[in-house]
Amino acid sequence: MINQDIIDASNDDFKTDLHTDYESLGARLDRRGISIDAIKQKVAGYGIAVPSWGVGTGGTRFARFPGAGEPRGIFDKLDDCGVIHRLTGATPSVSLHVPWDKADPADLLSKADEVGLSFDAMNSNTFQDQAEQAHSYKFGSLSHTDAATRAQAVEHNLECIALGDKIGSKALTIWVGDGSNFPGQVNFTRQFERYLDAAAQVYAGLPADWRLFTEHKMYEPAFYSTVVQDWGTNLMIAQHLGDQAFCLVDLGHHAPNVNIEMIVARLVHAQKLGGFHFNDSKYGDDDLDTGSIDPYRLFLVFNELVAAEGVAGFDPMHMLDQSHNVTDPIESMMSSAMEVQRAYVQALLVNRAELEGAQDSNDALTAQAALKTAFRTDVEPILAMARLEKGCAINPIAAYRAAGYRAKVAAVRPAIAAGSSGIV
Amino acid sequence: MINQDIIDASNDDFKTDLHTDYESLGARLDRRGISIDAIKQKVAGYGIAVPSWGVGTGGTRFARFPGAGEPRGIFDKLDDCGVIHRLTGATPSVSLHVPWDKADPADLLSKADEVGLSFDAMNSNTFQDQAEQAHSYKFGSLSHTDAATRAQAVEHNLECIALGDKIGSKALTIWVGDGSNFPGQVNFTRQFERYLDAAAQVYAGLPADWRLFTEHKMYEPAFYSTVVQDWGTNLMIAQHLGDQAFCLVDLGHHAPNVNIEMIVARLVHAQKLGGFHFNDSKYGDDDLDTGSIDPYRLFLVFNELVAAEGVAGFDPMHMLDQSHNVTDPIESMMSSAMEVQRAYVQALLVNRAELEGAQDSNDALTAQAALKTAFRTDVEPILAMARLEKGCAINPIAAYRAAGYRAKVAAVRPAIAAGSSGIV
Amino acid sequence: MINQDIIDASNDDFKTDLHTDYESLGARLDRRGISIDAIKQKVAGYGIAVPSWGVGTGGTRFARFPGAGEPRGIFDKLDDCGVIHRLTGATPSVSLHVPWDKADPADLLSKADEVGLSFDAMNSNTFQDQAEQAHSYKFGSLSHTDAATRAQAVEHNLECIALGDKIGSKALTIWVGDGSNFPGQVNFTRQFERYLDAAAQVYAGLPADWRLFTEHKMYEPAFYSTVVQDWGTNLMIAQHLGDQAFCLVDLGHHAPNVNIEMIVARLVHAQKLGGFHFNDSKYGDDDLDTGSIDPYRLFLVFNELVAAEGVAGFDPMHMLDQSHNVTDPIESMMSSAMEVQRAYVQALLVNRAELEGAQDSNDALTAQAALKTAFRTDVEPILAMARLEKGCAINPIAAYRAAGYRAKVAAVRPAIAAGSSGIV
Amino acid sequence: MINQDIIDASNDDFKTDLHTDYESLGARLDRRGISIDAIKQKVAGYGIAVPSWGVGTGGTRFARFPGAGEPRGIFDKLDDCGVIHRLTGATPSVSLHVPWDKADPADLLSKADEVGLSFDAMNSNTFQDQAEQAHSYKFGSLSHTDAATRAQAVEHNLECIALGDKIGSKALTIWVGDGSNFPGQVNFTRQFERYLDAAAQVYAGLPADWRLFTEHKMYEPAFYSTVVQDWGTNLMIAQHLGDQAFCLVDLGHHAPNVNIEMIVARLVHAQKLGGFHFNDSKYGDDDLDTGSIDPYRLFLVFNELVAAEGVAGFDPMHMLDQSHNVTDPIESMMSSAMEVQRAYVQALLVNRAELEGAQDSNDALTAQAALKTAFRTDVEPILAMARLEKGCAINPIAAYRAAGYRAKVAAVRPAIAAGSSGIV
Repeated sequence: MINQDIIDASNDDFKTDLHTDYESLGARLDRRGISIDAIKQKVAGYGIAVPSWGVGTGGTRFARFPGAGEPRGIFDKLDDCGVIHRLTGATPSVSLHVPWDKADPADLLSKADEVGLSFDAMNSNTFQDQAEQAHSYKFGSLSHTDAATRAQAVEHNLECIALGDKIGSKALTIWVGDGSNFPGQVNFTRQFERYLDAAAQVYAGLPADWRLFTEHKMYEPAFYSTVVQDWGTNLMIAQHLGDQAFCLVDLGHHAPNVNIEMIVARLVHAQKLGGFHFNDSKYGDDDLDTGSIDPYRLFLVFNELVAAEGVAGFDPMHMLDQSHNVTDPIESMMSSAMEVQRAYVQALLVNRAELEGAQDSNDALTAQAALKTAFRTDVEPILAMARLEKGCAINPIAAYRAAGYRAKVAAVRPAIAAGSSGIV
Repeated sequence: MINQDIIDASNDDFKTDLHTDYESLGARLDRRGISIDAIKQKVAGYGIAVPSWGVGTGGTRFARFPGAGEPRGIFDKLDDCGVIHRLTGATPSVSLHVPWDKADPADLLSKADEVGLSFDAMNSNTFQDQAEQAHSYKFGSLSHTDAATRAQAVEHNLECIALGDKIGSKALTIWVGDGSNFPGQVNFTRQFERYLDAAAQVYAGLPADWRLFTEHKMYEPAFYSTVVQDWGTNLMIAQHLGDQAFCLVDLGHHAPNVNIEMIVARLVHAQKLGGFHFNDSKYGDDDLDTGSIDPYRLFLVFNELVAAEGVAGFDPMHMLDQSHNVTDPIESMMSSAMEVQRAYVQALLVNRAELEGAQDSNDALTAQAALKTAFRTDVEPILAMARLEKGCAINPIAAYRAAGYRAKVAAVRPAIAAGSSGIV
Repeated sequence: MINQDIIDASNDDFKTDLHTDYESLGARLDRRGISIDAIKQKVAGYGIAVPSWGVGTGGTRFARFPGAGEPRGIFDKLDDCGVIHRLTGATPSVSLHVPWDKADPADLLSKADEVGLSFDAMNSNTFQDQAEQAHSYKFGSLSHTDAATRAQAVEHNLECIALGDKIGSKALTIWVGDGSNFPGQVNFTRQFERYLDAAAQVYAGLPADWRLFTEHKMYEPAFYSTVVQDWGTNLMIAQHLGDQAFCLVDLGHHAPNVNIEMIVARLVHAQKLGGFHFNDSKYGDDDLDTGSIDPYRLFLVFNELVAAEGVAGFDPMHMLDQSHNVTDPIESMMSSAMEVQRAYVQALLVNRAELEGAQDSNDALTAQAALKTAFRTDVEPILAMARLEKGCAINPIAAYRAAGYRAKVAAVRPAIAAGSSGIV
Repeated sequence: MINQDIIDASNDDFKTDLHTDYESLGARLDRRGISIDAIKQKVAGYGIAVPSWGVGTGGTRFARFPGAGEPRGIFDKLDDCGVIHRLTGATPSVSLHVPWDKADPADLLSKADEVGLSFDAMNSNTFQDQAEQAHSYKFGSLSHTDAATRAQAVEHNLECIALGDKIGSKALTIWVGDGSNFPGQVNFTRQFERYLDAAAQVYAGLPADWRLFTEHKMYEPAFYSTVVQDWGTNLMIAQHLGDQAFCLVDLGHHAPNVNIEMIVARLVHAQKLGGFHFNDSKYGDDDLDTGSIDPYRLFLVFNELVAAEGVAGFDPMHMLDQSHNVTDPIESMMSSAMEVQRAYVQALLVNRAELEGAQDSNDALTAQAALKTAFRTDVEPILAMARLEKGCAINPIAAYRAAGYRAKVAAVRPAIAAGSSGIV
């Protein structure tokens, strides 16, 4: 869909400056004892998964305003995801959501192959009712008071595993909306026990080389309590289930002011950090573009991840999970994937010997300066050079716009009417 | 729809105990120098508006799970609202939302008359796109960068006034979703100036005996900034527009930890408190049932309102504004209307001479005890007696369930499929 | 200090009404199938510990404004605590803070016996430096980078146990201020490991019939990170240490909006709920009087505790922990102890069969009504009757004021100058 | 105190690299159409005031851990402030706090002249009691229920003006701790009216060329309500008082999640933005080093300030206001002054034509990229070159440490014992 000629033409606009900037940055890093090429290699090898649902325009309970060329189904979504990876070289895999993305495994594999992608973690959906469904999830799924509803939710998760197994996925991510809207509506303990019991049934169906990720969230869609409300409960779940169970951290799922990078460190310590859903937020689960609100927080998370590299069993999965309500979703995901890379590279630049020395001597100012020096470094030339060397775009947004992709797909994909949402 | 026989039969179950309880409470209040009958008169004269949209099951961006007998349109909604008032005697008026509730004014008046209701403030909708609409509100309405879009939004508000004027409404409430999702997306000041300019055009179309209410909200559907983000901006708007403009306070639209009762006091001081959207929340704009999370906060708001009674120009409008996702909306609104009455009555019971004496002498413990003594009083017998004397139900939920209303309407109103919402 | 005559005289003012109110409440509860006498017996047997430091006027980092008759040391404090229990019959034990309350064990026991109190959990202090101290806690205590500082902190905790053991205490509560003020200042994981190691040394010194309580807190005095920041970390600690280690919950130590009653339920589930520091808060660790801001939240916590009664190993400790900046501390603690009792009694009134039935059938409205009905019950007559029957005051504040205790102690205890605090 | 030789020696370590980096950054900026020298000129002309109290080690209500060489009084403080400006060239003025800094005006002027500083806004203190004071501020100052206490507070503010007038200050900043700890303790409206009345008396005593800044704060030291709780109330005050009255914004004084840069824009719009107290915070009024927690937020504030440059009457004052609990206060203030400069320079780099174009066309991604491109630029060479050209230090922290200033003053200033604070 995106011709190499277009990429090359776009790169021609930026190539000379990039080489200049890469060299001068290289010289500056060299003074700090850092090899720019080594860093470039690390980021070139780094990939983050994109969510299939992220290429559609998102919305709120008040409204959804679709853009032009909305994907009609999983195969259109894979096309769009392919474009993201084609231009950035940063997103080699896609995470599917079932039943939204249900399709013949062979067709999925064939399409993925065509667009140069593989499949990341599978995502089940028991927070919505499907047309054919026997039991409603209005009052919960894995933790529902009714055994048949729980069984149906377990069965759905097993089905996700079965599909994932056929397309090369190695993980299942479970996020449920189960909770309550009134004090008293649920018995916290019994609800949790039902959840644990049902999750154990899903876990029992996990292939030996798979991992199960459970995701905590403070609130929404339930507004008084949520069954997996925070990392403490999430850790209890992962420990209850077993060695293949891990906690997934979504950056927008915490209480105000919470120190998320510290939660990351605690989960690493407990050997239960399974992965991330990256996005950004100012208020709640805003699902904004990664790094758009608080880029330093994102860096601090990666500072923990880089520090944990090499720890036994440490192998977290990275995925974007955003809602693109006012931008072209492809542009937002390209930009966000690059923000994640940026934070990763900045964290790689931290002088850890200096940091640890300052920590050991309680020299707080020097310790923070070690982080700030890394964070302040404009590492764009490293990211861009890694892209260029892969045949991708120095400036993916520019190349994408030049390619006219959105207009092309809008010509074949029918327009969608704006819709009202949950409130009416 | 609800036969008086059913109400009477239900009341028979509770009448004897009610009389006993009313008497013993009367005696206790008498000791505090309070006439229970005088209080009962005040609550009997108190009414709160219900929102037409509140009788449908609400949802979130993740899903909406409709119940049985969802109203098919405004006339079904008026039937449901009529039931609420029929059983509680507490909700004599309905607030309409345009275009959802657009209909022939004569038909609206006739139906309202049939179910014993009148019309409260009109609500415009420029946070969603309608099928026939020329310009999209994706990037704003009254504050949009495009003049034609702003004009369309102004025009829609004028249309709401025109309809309201024909059905006896005396106020327009404006809430917009305008804001931004990224730092930089909008210029805060220019966006605000556009809003002020457009709002002034709406204000210019206000009949002489109408009021304009503007509503602030911290976030959602915009997740980085909102044009009318807090009461400070809301006050600037009301002062800019003129004497007929006032601020509307929705209890769920503030930052975490904010002292809402103090905002109420400030708006009273500024003579710009226009009214309330009552609900409750634990996290964000959760739109939970009023008083379900923090009943003492609701009492503290009413403590300010009772203290302000008699202040020149003080005449706030009261309305419920909730999203009923897991309950029968009629039950939730009956229960919530009674919670509002309860808080009002409790606030009436505050010994204001004692309170002021304690305040003047900085006796904080006695001051708070004056509030707590009032709040702790179980005033249910007063509310129930007021209902009984109006021919309504002592226990509206019990009478409603006994009447089988939901099953009856479910028999004639078609079932609605559960829907996914904004996220896909 | 408080003569029985004064109590009796005060009680004479309220006795007749109390009997009337107790009877009419008894009749109402009887209708709900509840024996008022049985409830009264339960509350009569319920006691909550008071903190020795709570009888002095508290302050903030900006200032402290002492009142008249501030206690000069632990023996004055025990006098004041004795008054609280003498009048309320609700606070049979005192929790000491070392080194503030260090004294000869025999003298402590003798004084406690004189004022009718026993000793609750011991509290260590490694968040301040003492004059004679070799190593400063400026950069931490149990988790300090320096081994000698950690050893000193461990030693201090062992000393607290030794003193406590001699005066009948059976628990040690550890709260540390360790954390950081800058990203990078500490290595989260190493700091945590140092904490675990040092805490294990304290745990090793615990007598066989003692319990160790660790307390989590989100922030303050450290403002970027705290080593035991939340219940998740606290649970990891208690599980690491062993069967005698439990988590202590202070109601004011959580992030905004957090559902604390759910944390209580999770810790009960994990069999690691050790106890509470009761207080109330609107913003941060405000240490306001229990139930003064959100009495329904306090009730919801007790709703969990009553539901957990009888669970194996469930035996949490209850203590007040407040800062009395603008009230007479004795009055605030009497009032707060009664608020705790009130919440306990209200929770006892919950119709659990109805609640569970509603929960099982997802009837959220009925479930919440079951809680609200209990919460709305004005149980003051039960609390007052329990006090009267113990020879305590029907209205402890009135009796206390009538007794003129504050003026009496002010005559012998020297006035203290107002002090500035941390900021300069 | 800091010899030029030491600065020069330190600069020798960094000079060559600085010239290289300045040149390569200049070339990169040149490509963006920006003259690096013009930017350097702007930052060279930019100054921020330091608070006299900021050079002492701060503390919390739990403890204060002084460092070596704590200043003994205002003249030591001026020495320390002189060092900050000597090395950074960024802090030409000092803000005094009365009565802490009370001294003979001639001596103050002479000392200021000696250390190369002038005097910024005066700060009054009515949140603490002083030894000689007739009336206590325990229950408030300007808003106290007692007229004599209010008069005393007014008088104190007038005394601050009188002193300031003699030393060249042109502004008074009022921050009060007045509020309440219990619902009911104060009557919100009467307290506010008393505040307005007393503030008007202070305002009446303002010289014609002075400005009055009032500061809002959500909570602390009062924990239920604060009389000037937010910018809405602050704006009401400034409008009530008159043309010389303006609102002061402290970055740490807001509710969680609040969009502070938008408040800045609203106050600019209202022509009432008076100035800033810069610091950073993660939880409450943490008073952490500016830019240490969320540097992007600081940039976004400066983005508003730069956008407002040239607006009629726009002339906000800039001051640091931090509590340095774990660092050398001089180091923290040097570092923070440079962080403020950094944010200012980054904001100057925003391509405003591109930004506005993107805003007008609702191209959110491009708009945010315009901000991010500026923010990502490592402008350290510009700041450092401006310092070097002023004869200051390229690396002020390194030069300061090399100078051994702290050890020198510790030799003459006596050690201070660690102190406990408000809690006991």
